[in-house]
Amino acid sequence: MRIAIAQLNYHIGNFEGNIAKMKQAISEAKKQNADIVAFGELAICGYPPRDFLEFDDFIRLAEEGIMTLAEAADDIAVIVGAPAKNPEPEGKDLYNSAFVLYNGSIIHTAKKTLLPTYDIFDEYRYFEPCHDFNVFEFKNHRIALTICEDLWNIGNENPLYTVCPMDEMMPQRPDIMINISASPFSYTQSQERIAVMRENTLRYNLPLFYINHVGAQTELIFDGGSLVIGPSGKIVEELPYFREEIKVYELEEVMQEKSSITQPKDKYALIHEALLLGIRDYFGKLGFKKAILGLSGGIDSALATTLAAQALGSENVRVLLMPSKFSSDHSISDAVQLAKNLGIQYDIISIESAFDAFEKSLDPIFGDLPFNIAEENIQARSRGVLLMALSNKFGNILLNTSNKSEAAVGYGTLYGDMAGGLSIIGDLYKTEVFELSKWINRNGEVIPENSITKPPSAELRPNQKDSDSLPDYEALDEILYQYIEKEQGPREIYAMGFDPKLVDRILRLVNINEFKRHQMAPVLRVSKKAFGMGRRMPIVGKYLS
Amino acid sequence: MRIAIAQLNYHIGNFEGNIAKMKQAISEAKKQNADIVAFGELAICGYPPRDFLEFDDFIRLAEEGIMTLAEAADDIAVIVGAPAKNPEPEGKDLYNSAFVLYNGSIIHTAKKTLLPTYDIFDEYRYFEPCHDFNVFEFKNHRIALTICEDLWNIGNENPLYTVCPMDEMMPQRPDIMINISASPFSYTQSQERIAVMRENTLRYNLPLFYINHVGAQTELIFDGGSLVIGPSGKIVEELPYFREEIKVYELEEVMQEKSSITQPKDKYALIHEALLLGIRDYFGKLGFKKAILGLSGGIDSALATTLAAQALGSENVRVLLMPSKFSSDHSISDAVQLAKNLGIQYDIISIESAFDAFEKSLDPIFGDLPFNIAEENIQARSRGVLLMALSNKFGNILLNTSNKSEAAVGYGTLYGDMAGGLSIIGDLYKTEVFELSKWINRNGEVIPENSITKPPSAELRPNQKDSDSLPDYEALDEILYQYIEKEQGPREIYAMGFDPKLVDRILRLVNINEFKRHQMAPVLRVSKKAFGMGRRMPIVGKYLS
Repeated sequence: MRIAIAQLNYHIGNFEGNIAKMKQAISEAKKQNADIVAFGELAICGYPPRDFLEFDDFIRLAEEGIMTLAEAADDIAVIVGAPAKNPEPEGKDLYNSAFVLYNGSIIHTAKKTLLPTYDIFDEYRYFEPCHDFNVFEFKNHRIALTICEDLWNIGNENPLYTVCPMDEMMPQRPDIMINISASPFSYTQSQERIAVMRENTLRYNLPLFYINHVGAQTELIFDGGSLVIGPSGKIVEELPYFREEIKVYELEEVMQEKSSITQPKDKYALIHEALLLGIRDYFGKLGFKKAILGLSGGIDSALATTLAAQALGSENVRVLLMPSKFSSDHSISDAVQLAKNLGIQYDIISIESAFDAFEKSLDPIFGDLPFNIAEENIQARSRGVLLMALSNKFGNILLNTSNKSEAAVGYGTLYGDMAGGLSIIGDLYKTEVFELSKWINRNGEVIPENSITKPPSAELRPNQKDSDSLPDYEALDEILYQYIEKEQGPREIYAMGFDPKLVDRILRLVNINEFKRHQMAPVLRVSKKAFGMGRRMPIVGKYLS
Repeated sequence: MRIAIAQLNYHIGNFEGNIAKMKQAISEAKKQNADIVAFGELAICGYPPRDFLEFDDFIRLAEEGIMTLAEAADDIAVIVGAPAKNPEPEGKDLYNSAFVLYNGSIIHTAKKTLLPTYDIFDEYRYFEPCHDFNVFEFKNHRIALTICEDLWNIGNENPLYTVCPMDEMMPQRPDIMINISASPFSYTQSQERIAVMRENTLRYNLPLFYINHVGAQTELIFDGGSLVIGPSGKIVEELPYFREEIKVYELEEVMQEKSSITQPKDKYALIHEALLLGIRDYFGKLGFKKAILGLSGGIDSALATTLAAQALGSENVRVLLMPSKFSSDHSISDAVQLAKNLGIQYDIISIESAFDAFEKSLDPIFGDLPFNIAEENIQARSRGVLLMALSNKFGNILLNTSNKSEAAVGYGTLYGDMAGGLSIIGDLYKTEVFELSKWINRNGEVIPENSITKPPSAELRPNQKDSDSLPDYEALDEILYQYIEKEQGPREIYAMGFDPKLVDRILRLVNINEFKRHQMAPVLRVSKKAFGMGRRMPIVGKYLS
C-alpha cells in the first residue's frame, strides 16, 4: 500500500484553482504508483472559508468540485476535505467532511466530530458535530479517517471535548490512521502538533498520516509540516514547512520506522519564513505585485520593509521617507542606507508643507492652545495621506509597520502609522522585532546597525523617545505577553514580581485601546495569540480600564 | 406569588456598577412585595463579555459578585445570569449559568444548553452545553428556568439543535417558565421573539416570564421588550423598548390573561430609538460626552449629525464643514441650515490649502499623471485629518457617517470618510437613510429638504454624481439586501429578474471591498445582518470576485 501526502497551498473560494491543483497532484501521485492520495481539510474551498459557508451557492460549488475530483480519482483513492450538507432538518446545516473518492464515486465519508471554536477557529458556527464513527476498507486495509481537531483531545489534562473519535473507531480494528488538517502556524505550533500526533500513535499503536495545508489566507499562515509517524511513535517524516510538497510513502516502510526526517525549529528562522509566505500569498492571492511602505529610519519600518523586499522582490517594493522638523539627521540617513542595502526605490517627501497647511487651516479653531497629541497625530496622518496617495496612484498595497507592543498599548496613530492593508510585524513584540532584525543581519548588515541600536522614537515632537511615555520594552513586553498570550490577570502578574502600578497602567492601556485595534489591518499571525480574529474583546467594556 | 422583571442596562465588565444597579432593583422589587426578581443572562458581567471570559480573574469577579447578590437576596429570590466554572476536567471550562439566590445562598443553578454560535453570537467559544435539566421549587411553585436560546429551538422548520431543554424538563411538571435573555435588537426581532415565546407557552401550556437586557454594548443594541405571556399564549405584557424597567406581576393575574399590553413596532421609529440608545451608551459607557462629525450637506452626514444631536444634546455635538473646489454652493448652505436647525456648533475649514500642499509635495512623483482616485482620496483623507485633529484636541469622538450601501460596495475612502470611532448609520442602506430622514422630518423640517431631494454626490471631482459609478440605489439596495441579509447567491438573484451583469458586478464589489470594511468602525446593528462581528468574511478569497 502506497499513500501520498499532498501538502498544498489552497485559495479560499477559488474552486477552479484548487481543483486544478489537486488534479495535478493526483497525476503526480499516480505516476509514483500511490494507491491513495490525501489532501487537506476543506481543501476544495480553502480554509477558513468563514461565512461563505452560509451561501448555498458556495456549497453547490463545493459539491460540484467533489464530483469533478471523483472523476479524476481514476484507479487511485482520493481523500479530500469539503463542506457537505446535513440531510437532517435538526442541527446545523453542514458537516465538515472528508470524502474518499475512487473511480468516479464517493466510497466513504467521514465527518468531523470535534469542532474547534476558540482563538481563530469558528467551526461550530457552521458545522454539526458528527456522532457516528466508521473506518473504511480499501485494498485490504482498514483506515480510520479523521479531520484535524478529531485527534487533538488527548495528551492534555484539560481536554476540550467529552468524546475521542479514535476511541470510538478502535473497536472496528483500523490498521492505519489518516488525518486531514488545516492547522495554522505559530512559532510553537509544530512542536505541539508533533507531541499530540505522537500521543495518538502511542495510544492506538497505529501509523499516522497527517496532512496539513501550507500557505497564507490573509492573517493565517499554514506551515505544512505534514507528518508520517510509525505505530510506536517514531517520526518517520516531518515534511518541510512553508512550501508545497507531494510525497509517497510505502506503508511497509512506515511500519518499520527505519528513517526519521524532521525540520529545524529555530524561532526566528520560522517566523521569518512564515512572514515571507504571509506577505507573498497576500499579494499573490489578491492579484497584486507591488508594495509601498513608509520608512522612518526606525527599526519597525526597517524590518517591515526588509521582509517585504525579501518576499516580493526589491523591484516590487518602494518606500517613502517623510521627514518633519522633528526628524533627526540619522532618520533619513538610516532609511536611505536600508533602501540602498535592499536595492529598492525610495523617495523623500517632507510633510512640512502639508503640516503647515493643516496648522494654518486649524488656527481659527485651535488658536493658542498648546501643541499636543493633536499636532503629533497630524504629522502621522499626513504621512498616511501621502502613502495612500501613492498606493492609489500606482496600485501598490500599503503595508503597515506597527509592532505588537505599540498596537497593544495604543502607541500609534489611527489612520496614520496604523494605516495599511496588512500588518506584517503586528504579532511581534518590540523585543522580538529587535531579535528578528538581528537574525536577518546574522550574515552581514541588511538592516542598518544604527536602526537597531538607537533608542526608539516616534519623532513627533522635539527629542521624543518611546521611553518618555512607555516603560522599558523588556518589562512592557513580558507583562503584555502574560496578559495577552497567557491570559493572566493583574493579580497573577503582580505575583510574578512586577510593580502593581505598572501592571495596572499597562493592562488599562491595552483595554482602552481596543477601539484602535478594531480598525487595524489584519495581522500576520505568528504567535499563539495575535490581535485580530483570535482575540475578540469588547470595545465598550469596563474591565481593568 | 409575585414575580418581578428587572429589564436593566448593564455594562460589560463593570461588575461594581452592574451589582449596584441590581441591588437597587432588588430593593425596589421587595418594596413591591415581589417573591422573585429576575435579571438578564450574564447580567453580572454584561453581554457579550467576549474573550474576557477566558480570564480567571474575570470569572473570579463574577463569582464574588454572585455572592454579594446572594447577601442582598434577603427574603426575596434573585435570579441572575453569570458565567460559572465547569468542575469537570473534560469540556469547555465554563457554563453560561443562571443562579437562584435566596437568603445568602445559591438555592439552584440552571445551565444553558443551546449555545448560539452564529451571526453575532460566539457562545460555544466559551461554554460547555448543559445536559442536565432540573426545575426548582420555590414557595410551592415548580419553576423551569432557562437561558435565552434554550427556548428558541421550536417554531421553525430547520431547528439548529437536536435537543429542547423544556421538553426535557416537562416530566418534572413545572408550573412556571422563566427565561433570562440577552437578545439584541434588529428591526424585525421583537416580532420573531414574540412568536417564538408564544410557541413555547402554547407547546407547554405554561406562563412565561422572559427577561431581556436593554442598552447598547458597542455595536449591539439590546432593546428590552421583556415579555409576560399567559399559559394559552396571550401577551399579558410586552415591556417598553430601549429603557430600563422594573415591574412586578401577580402570577394569578398572569394565569388569567386579562390584560394585554404590547409596544408599537414601526420600523423607522424603532430604528430611530435604537440608534439614539446606541450612540448614548457608546459615549456614556466610554465616559465621553462630545461628538464631532464632518457635515457635507449630503443626506448621510445630515442624518448622522441629527441622530448624534438628538442622542447627546445639541451642546455636545459640533461639526466641521470642509468644502473644496468641487463642492457645490448648496453643500455649504444645506449643511449650515442643518446646523442651525439643530442648534449645534459648526465651523468651516476649506481643504484647499491642505490639498494643494499634498499636490505640490507629490508633484515630483506624480508629475503629469492624470487626476484620478488618488486625488479624490486625498480630499477625503484631508477631511479625515482635520476631523481627527479636532477629536484629538478637544476629546470629541469622531462619528462615522457611512451608510450600508456604500460600505458594501466600497464607495468610500479608507481613513477619509470611513474614519470614526462608531458608525451610526452603517447598517442602513441608502434607501433606508432616506426613509429614516423623512421619518425624522415627519412633523416638520429638521433635515433640510434639499439634502433629501438632491442627487447624492461625493463631490470629489467636477460634477460627480453617485449615479455615475453606482447603479440606481433602489436596485443596488435590493440586490445587496438579497446578498447580505438573505445570503442569496448570484443564481438566486438572477432568478429574481435582475440583470446578471449588474448582479455580478455588485457582488464582486462587495467581496473585493472586504479589506475596507475590516478597518471600519463598529456599526450600530439594526438589521438581521450588519457588517462587523455578525458577518465574517475572508479578505483574501476568490468567490464571486
